Amino acid sequence: MPDKKAPTDHPVHPLIEARWSPYVFADRPVPEADLCSLFEAARWAASSYNEQPWGYIVAAKGNPAQYEALLSCLAEGNRLWAKTAPVLVLSVVNLKFARNGKENRAAMHDMGLAAGNLVFEASARGLSVHQMIGILPDRAKEIYAIPEDLEAYTGLAIGYPGDAAGLPDALKERNGKPRQRKPLRDFVCGGKWGDPSPWVLKKFASE
Amino acid sequence: MPDKKAPTDHPVHPLIEARWSPYVFADRPVPEADLCSLFEAARWAASSYNEQPWGYIVAAKGNPAQYEALLSCLAEGNRLWAKTAPVLVLSVVNLKFARNGKENRAAMHDMGLAAGNLVFEASARGLSVHQMIGILPDRAKEIYAIPEDLEAYTGLAIGYPGDAAGLPDALKERNGKPRQRKPLRDFVCGGKWGDPSPWVLKKFASE
Repeated sequence: MPDKKAPTDHPVHPLIEARWSPYVFADRPVPEADLCSLFEAARWAASSYNEQPWGYIVAAKGNPAQYEALLSCLAEGNRLWAKTAPVLVLSVVNLKFARNGKENRAAMHDMGLAAGNLVFEASARGLSVHQMIGILPDRAKEIYAIPEDLEAYTGLAIGYPGDAAGLPDALKERNGKPRQRKPLRDFVCGGKWGDPSPWVLKKFASE
Repeated sequence: MPDKKAPTDHPVHPLIEARWSPYVFADRPVPEADLCSLFEAARWAASSYNEQPWGYIVAAKGNPAQYEALLSCLAEGNRLWAKTAPVLVLSVVNLKFARNGKENRAAMHDMGLAAGNLVFEASARGLSVHQMIGILPDRAKEIYAIPEDLEAYTGLAIGYPGDAAGLPDALKERNGKPRQRKPLRDFVCGGKWGDPSPWVLKKFASE
């Protein structure tokens, strides 16, 4: 495996440091008990008015017809590598509150919170998740008979990270590339937008 | 503290099980080094095209003018309880890609991923986060001179959980209420939307 540990400026939990999005997965199924725990973790995310606007469609390689159907809902560029994942998932968001049909402004954000929990639980179990916004929502809507107010929103490829040796060069490079992020001073502000909080510029003794 | 441990149907990481959203915080400041680690955790979330569409405006009680300004950007109902938090945050989302100005469909979702990381890191440090969609984005835009394509999106109250004894009855009840969620069979599907995946109905030996 490439060394993908985040080069952090401040200490974070080892599972946050370790998470990354592989472009190749090992040919090894994910136990059903682990899958349950992944969705259980998503289940306990916070959401606005406890609406829980998230849903999931799951397909494992053990059921080839279901797997192929789900793979066909991913954008072509993602199918190329996601097809090595033993489990594929579509996340589905309900954009309206179930109780009154009004717009839920937090729906997509809260779907992200649930995904964050799922990804964290995956990391704790040695699993990796590669999330994709590149899916075909209309195709998913048709295949899975998704109701009107709901929308297939992201794809998730889930499995154990695999050997990049057989990947095409472009994907091999993306798979092995060191992780990079903006520094805190670029996005953590105090008095006005764009003025970094003074403490983000400090080094702390504990580090 | 009330017992808010999630009554899970499948095992999850203890920090996911333990997280909840308090309505009262202890009168105890959050060390700056811990704050840095919270935003560092957010920093390493995944995002579409590694856009990192998230930003934060942070105010601690140690700076009363900044704290009052941020408190004034929360919806009135949230101000009632959030004012006990030693740290308040507005999360700000960039709805367009910085590199080409095009709409970023994943922006709000990815902001949720970053928030998930932040909340998890907080839990690991004994801190609690109560997230709110009820904020006043226009007021925030004005006070903090937030640029046109960006939007203040959620509020976060951060601190150590406090004693609910002094809370008004309605908030005391919400603070102590057991956490509830839909069961997995209601939102994890297989063949069609609404058909539960067969394995979510199973009990596993490891539990």
